[in-house]
Amino acid sequence: MDIKEKALQMHAQWKGKLSTELKSPITNREELSVAYTPGVAAPCLEIEKDESLAYKYTGKGNTVAVITDGTAVLGLGDIGPSAGMPVMEGKCALFKAFAGIDAVPICIDSKDPKEIIDTVYNISKSFGGINLEDISAPRCFEIERALIEKCDIPVFHDDQHGTAIIVSAGLLNAVKYTKKEMGKLKIVINGAGSAGISIAKMILRLQFGDVTLVDRFGAIYDGNPENNSEQQKMALVTNRDKKKGTLADVIKDADIFVGVSKPGVLTPEMIKSMAKDPIVFAMANPVPEIMPDEAKAAGAAVVGTGRSDFPNQVNNVLAFPGIFRGALDCRAKKITEEMKEAAARAIADVIPEEELTADYVLPDPFNPKVVENVARAVMDVWGE
Amino acid sequence: MDIKEKALQMHAQWKGKLSTELKSPITNREELSVAYTPGVAAPCLEIEKDESLAYKYTGKGNTVAVITDGTAVLGLGDIGPSAGMPVMEGKCALFKAFAGIDAVPICIDSKDPKEIIDTVYNISKSFGGINLEDISAPRCFEIERALIEKCDIPVFHDDQHGTAIIVSAGLLNAVKYTKKEMGKLKIVINGAGSAGISIAKMILRLQFGDVTLVDRFGAIYDGNPENNSEQQKMALVTNRDKKKGTLADVIKDADIFVGVSKPGVLTPEMIKSMAKDPIVFAMANPVPEIMPDEAKAAGAAVVGTGRSDFPNQVNNVLAFPGIFRGALDCRAKKITEEMKEAAARAIADVIPEEELTADYVLPDPFNPKVVENVARAVMDVWGE
Repeated sequence: MDIKEKALQMHAQWKGKLSTELKSPITNREELSVAYTPGVAAPCLEIEKDESLAYKYTGKGNTVAVITDGTAVLGLGDIGPSAGMPVMEGKCALFKAFAGIDAVPICIDSKDPKEIIDTVYNISKSFGGINLEDISAPRCFEIERALIEKCDIPVFHDDQHGTAIIVSAGLLNAVKYTKKEMGKLKIVINGAGSAGISIAKMILRLQFGDVTLVDRFGAIYDGNPENNSEQQKMALVTNRDKKKGTLADVIKDADIFVGVSKPGVLTPEMIKSMAKDPIVFAMANPVPEIMPDEAKAAGAAVVGTGRSDFPNQVNNVLAFPGIFRGALDCRAKKITEEMKEAAARAIADVIPEEELTADYVLPDPFNPKVVENVARAVMDVWGE
Repeated sequence: MDIKEKALQMHAQWKGKLSTELKSPITNREELSVAYTPGVAAPCLEIEKDESLAYKYTGKGNTVAVITDGTAVLGLGDIGPSAGMPVMEGKCALFKAFAGIDAVPICIDSKDPKEIIDTVYNISKSFGGINLEDISAPRCFEIERALIEKCDIPVFHDDQHGTAIIVSAGLLNAVKYTKKEMGKLKIVINGAGSAGISIAKMILRLQFGDVTLVDRFGAIYDGNPENNSEQQKMALVTNRDKKKGTLADVIKDADIFVGVSKPGVLTPEMIKSMAKDPIVFAMANPVPEIMPDEAKAAGAAVVGTGRSDFPNQVNNVLAFPGIFRGALDCRAKKITEEMKEAAARAIADVIPEEELTADYVLPDPFNPKVVENVARAVMDVWGE
């Protein structure tokens, strides 16, 4: 049975991947009177006096909402809120499996950014954190920005930051492994949507070197009339030499290729035109920009993809469980840039330098050290 | 240790009465690929083609949102969304304990009815039903009405209908037990907020007889300038003789007293002025309108209260678990008046006529027949 059939069969059997369970049974009047009326009035009145006691008397401190509007679900596009639900439930399942977090899947039936912002804000007191998921660009930027501003709990759009954090972790180790010099590198990112832009920001922050973003219309440079507003902002801090042209033009002499674009756009010839020991992260799903064996044959020193059947999988589950575990445990109000950077470094550091190989620059997501190290790193930064 | 201390201690220990659990473990790459990417794309695409398949491939069909704005929590009043959370979590726990339903507690941080309606509607596709809870009158009427209209899933404001259904069930049995004649009864309801009005509507529907509502300012009659808009609507179908005056004035010769008001407002003298074998449901919380022993000493034939330490407890848990169980199982789009009536009769019928006593007109909430009978009755009506 192939994965598609198996997934349909299992989803029909589960009817939802999550269930709600009681921490304590309610089987008689006494238990009822403690968990519900009249006993429950006591914690209510305590929280009314001091709202922070919600963390003491309710599940707030271990609960994250996973929220989408269904406009950019996986690689499937705008399939709507109901069709996005299996992914949100899956994400919630990962929160539990990897970090013990109780997560609630919520699909919003609106595409209007203002309405989405208001809706999420209005329900935000019910949770300890909000994971935005699969919201299309550029709307996702505005929505995340507004919610971070308004809410007093962490709000995190995983599609932007999760991928960026893990690509950065993989690149940190790939650079270490290939003994390239941080700060002097040339990086080309193909695909300038929410993921590409977020990766670019993080690579700049970690000071790898000069980044050039490339979209369908070619390289993004300051003043390119094709730039959308987010791309123009990026143009001011990327592509120092204002290179123009196609991917084939700008990839010459680059040290690192990062693809969040589409299958087959990276050719062996392009890899051959890159600098010595090129690093290739080709993350188009399910078929990467170039297949790993082809990339290696063309000279790539390290290859990463989004797929679990190749080495160096860029898998978001390496980041978000630990980030939220840490943020909840220290009651952080936000996920700051410093916390994201700390998470990237923590993921990279799970692999000791002497164990790095071309096929092992990112740790296995089932390695329990990952969530532990990331949570600790995030808490340490917030505590500073 | 008293109940208050015990409740605080247990709530602090639980940190939330619910947890989210996985129906199937995720401990290796294969399980991950079925529950999440790439497998999860298959059910997403099926639901995109046919939205009703959300009931097949997600938890929608067994999930209810328990939603409040924190404006009328228990008898505590407007304590705000965060302070209302322990009650919502408790309600969710009851959904699970009594009906196996996965419920999600959500507190809305807005008091504007339109904003509440929009927020709830925007997230409604995530659930199979919506239980509105502890929203103050008269806002609750407008909010419920709009949501029933907009949503394609059942929306049910338990404070209005739950109490009405159970009071009705208790009164049906009390009337049977006292051999009073249905249709000819005089009923006085003291307290004309959301609960009182909803009880009045159901008693009228079940054709007990003539109902008179009494509020702080006295009896509600057509044209009373003190009536609010909902009360004036009720004035047109209640109080046939347009009686004016206080509770003491209008309770003379009444067969039934229903109190959803405040402690101590019903005196033994008032009971003595009622018709033979009066029925008294005194549900002010935690101290009833009259204590049961005092009511009996004054001649009451049957006494019910909201308390678990007296017989005939009007406990909402008799109704909402079975109502939602039935509505979810037949995928009802609404909870109709017929379904509520069927629920009331089903609760009453759990006690065979020959087992009725003055202290046993309502079944024990832990009797498993209750949820079973109510769910079956609700489904039968929807199926008609």
